[in-house]
Amino acid sequence: MKDHAEKQRVSLDEVFHPRGVAVVGVSASKLGFAELVVDALKRAGFPAIYPVNPKYEEVLGLPCYPSVTAIPGVVDHVVVNIPAESVLKLLDECAEKGVRSVHFFTAGFGESGYRDRADLEKEMLVKARAGGFRIIGPNCVGLYVPGSRVTNHFDDPLDPGPIGFISQSGGHAQNMAYYGRARGLRFSKVVSYGNALDVNESELLDYFAEDPETEIVAAYIEGVRDGARFAEALRNAASRKPVVIYKGGRTEAGRRAAQGHTASMTSSVALFDALCRQVKAIQVDDLDEMVDVLTALRFMSRLPRGNGVALIGAGGGPSVLAGDGMEKEGLRLPGFPTGVQEALKKVLPVPGSIFINPLDTPNLATADGIAAALKVLGPVPEIDMFVYHLGFHPISRWGMGWLSAEAFLKPTIEAMKAAQQEGKPVLLALRPALDLEGMKEFLSVQETFVEAGFPVFHSMRKLARAVARVIAWNRPPAGTG
Amino acid sequence: MKDHAEKQRVSLDEVFHPRGVAVVGVSASKLGFAELVVDALKRAGFPAIYPVNPKYEEVLGLPCYPSVTAIPGVVDHVVVNIPAESVLKLLDECAEKGVRSVHFFTAGFGESGYRDRADLEKEMLVKARAGGFRIIGPNCVGLYVPGSRVTNHFDDPLDPGPIGFISQSGGHAQNMAYYGRARGLRFSKVVSYGNALDVNESELLDYFAEDPETEIVAAYIEGVRDGARFAEALRNAASRKPVVIYKGGRTEAGRRAAQGHTASMTSSVALFDALCRQVKAIQVDDLDEMVDVLTALRFMSRLPRGNGVALIGAGGGPSVLAGDGMEKEGLRLPGFPTGVQEALKKVLPVPGSIFINPLDTPNLATADGIAAALKVLGPVPEIDMFVYHLGFHPISRWGMGWLSAEAFLKPTIEAMKAAQQEGKPVLLALRPALDLEGMKEFLSVQETFVEAGFPVFHSMRKLARAVARVIAWNRPPAGTG
Repeated sequence: MKDHAEKQRVSLDEVFHPRGVAVVGVSASKLGFAELVVDALKRAGFPAIYPVNPKYEEVLGLPCYPSVTAIPGVVDHVVVNIPAESVLKLLDECAEKGVRSVHFFTAGFGESGYRDRADLEKEMLVKARAGGFRIIGPNCVGLYVPGSRVTNHFDDPLDPGPIGFISQSGGHAQNMAYYGRARGLRFSKVVSYGNALDVNESELLDYFAEDPETEIVAAYIEGVRDGARFAEALRNAASRKPVVIYKGGRTEAGRRAAQGHTASMTSSVALFDALCRQVKAIQVDDLDEMVDVLTALRFMSRLPRGNGVALIGAGGGPSVLAGDGMEKEGLRLPGFPTGVQEALKKVLPVPGSIFINPLDTPNLATADGIAAALKVLGPVPEIDMFVYHLGFHPISRWGMGWLSAEAFLKPTIEAMKAAQQEGKPVLLALRPALDLEGMKEFLSVQETFVEAGFPVFHSMRKLARAVARVIAWNRPPAGTG
Repeated sequence: MKDHAEKQRVSLDEVFHPRGVAVVGVSASKLGFAELVVDALKRAGFPAIYPVNPKYEEVLGLPCYPSVTAIPGVVDHVVVNIPAESVLKLLDECAEKGVRSVHFFTAGFGESGYRDRADLEKEMLVKARAGGFRIIGPNCVGLYVPGSRVTNHFDDPLDPGPIGFISQSGGHAQNMAYYGRARGLRFSKVVSYGNALDVNESELLDYFAEDPETEIVAAYIEGVRDGARFAEALRNAASRKPVVIYKGGRTEAGRRAAQGHTASMTSSVALFDALCRQVKAIQVDDLDEMVDVLTALRFMSRLPRGNGVALIGAGGGPSVLAGDGMEKEGLRLPGFPTGVQEALKKVLPVPGSIFINPLDTPNLATADGIAAALKVLGPVPEIDMFVYHLGFHPISRWGMGWLSAEAFLKPTIEAMKAAQQEGKPVLLALRPALDLEGMKEFLSVQETFVEAGFPVFHSMRKLARAVARVIAWNRPPAGTG
């Protein structure tokens, strides 16, 4: 927070709250990124959208302007999709118009490997500094800030949430919003920053560390230009909020791809890993795992004190596989003491049941059975959390109607909430279907649990891996506890 | 094949081809396993189904008989879902009727942990030996033999295929048929054998090793009663056909569950692993991975000579993640020689493209681009196979119509088939959607590729893990070349 904080520079908070947005390089005849952004902003109800292209008078039903300076209203943010060759002239117009930020979807700069394109990037930065505006990218999808109704994709949710995500990749920024959507994950700001010419990962981490709208920080980073600065920003952010991070380009092939993608000289993986361990950032192995860890952090009713799970559900083979999967991934299924087994036998039918951990009885496909099991198991000290599964049959294959909202879901959710009030979180493992009918039922059941505030995972192993990472992160350092 | 082959015993081949099936313990008022089996057999068009229950005259539109002996026609196979207490009397009837096999869905025998129930199992076996019929189970879902129109689940495919699957768990037997269905996996026989009182894993492995309808063997096994016998059967089967195997109960929790589930004393995991290595059985980590390995074995146009992959697709961030994922899981993405990069630049547009491995150009979302890339890369000696991905956006989110069958899928498949004829397999990584509209599009695209005979995987890491296992299995032993 020293030399890099220039007083006169436009703040990220201003960037994230534009009053008017110009979209430069729109076409009335094709549907590419610029047109999709105009469409997305319209759907989001953003009030002041200005398509720019001298060739058209109207684009997607909006007046189209010949240049940024020709726009009558205030323009704070400019989205650009024109060839790299034409960007310097555009930046002069942006300076004249007094914009706060310019986002380049346009690629073909530093990452192309051509020297003249790297030089062009430097000239762009000079113009931005002189013009008093910020650059996002180039080579990225820019901003998704639901609170400001700013978005770059037509089906991004418009309700904000507590997660801030920075992503060097535009694809991952858009995918994260989509993957997280049905799991209940919502975002304060998602920023795709590409080649990081001006706004970069360190400034964004500093911002999210302070941002009152952001409670959890997630980051997909391919390369870091200033290692010391980044280490400071990551340490600061991770000391205030959970930070979940994936470092792209861990392998030789990934490194080559990152170099071609965002001109990132990916730093030593060992150094990066050591830094994350030291500052207690939660590293993940891919984007799906990031969604899982965010789900655990966001929706567990509290962080479990240890890694002891009571696994309850119906199905013998699936229970074996689930037990194997959970212990492989770092959770533990403590055996139930004899007294607990006897207590379970009093409230659950004995035939077809297995009163161990995993607990497997046909009655765990009924709300009464679930309530009875949770009540008996709640006080067992070795158990830190409950995981409920549906046998990993695709839900529709049961075909017996017991998953109806009234008869099963509503009372089940009540029983689970009651168990959580005793202090131990309940997590769900629901397997997505592989056919359309099954998927319909799956999505409806998932939605019911998510809306009730429960963390839902799509496999037992994914659940276990994510929760084990969160527990390890939450563990007090050796010697203090 | 010595002492355990008794001349007079009913062979498994006879068991798998029954002329008439009785279903004992059906109800006209509920829908449990027995009723679902009657329904499934009807849907499958099995010609001679005999529901049995003295309480009813008709069940699901079929005449219902008071006992097995009251059935007028030939009964070869009996499906049983009556309480354990009543089974001995039933077995006397079965002997009198001259049936070949009796399958017990009924649970609550040896696996219950009660001594008298274990003794009951022994009496059942004595009756079966004396009566000259075989027992499947108890505590399982029994037979799914599409060629005989015998099935236990209403949506099992009725076209047979080259995979034989034995599963100690009924849930896994049914799940496997479902998970494999959309990937094109079809089965010669799926046998769920539960407590393995009579028909067991070793006899089934011997059968599949010889069965001309079975080319690939898959097995889910919780416990093995006769280790030496099993080792011999596994060695024999694996020397003739690829055998893919999951050992349930690898962890403490899994072991407890397996003990409760099928009374299996799971043997030492280390011993089991050593045996699999020695006889070259392909071990997997869960059922999803089994489906992936079976998909690779069944649909790769040939087994790759090495683990070098050319990864082609569109999307920068996804390419980085894909490169990382593949190398983490044991495949290799060799860099393209300069000459190859130059050749690619001649046939693919330079802006927005990255001519390395992973190859990432927007044109790889067009059939012409794919054809051009495959042609240039085909002869590169470091490349053993091609993997094509669609950027791991859920397909529908592109929203630009380029995935239409005529304009994209048909010519793309032609280009991929041409590449395969040059000797290197093409594999696909398609990500299932998480919303209903996207899932519709995903299923249709997946179906087109599967029907064209391609192996489709649902994530890059899953693809890489499965293919790496198959390559390791196919590798000649050290020292032989």
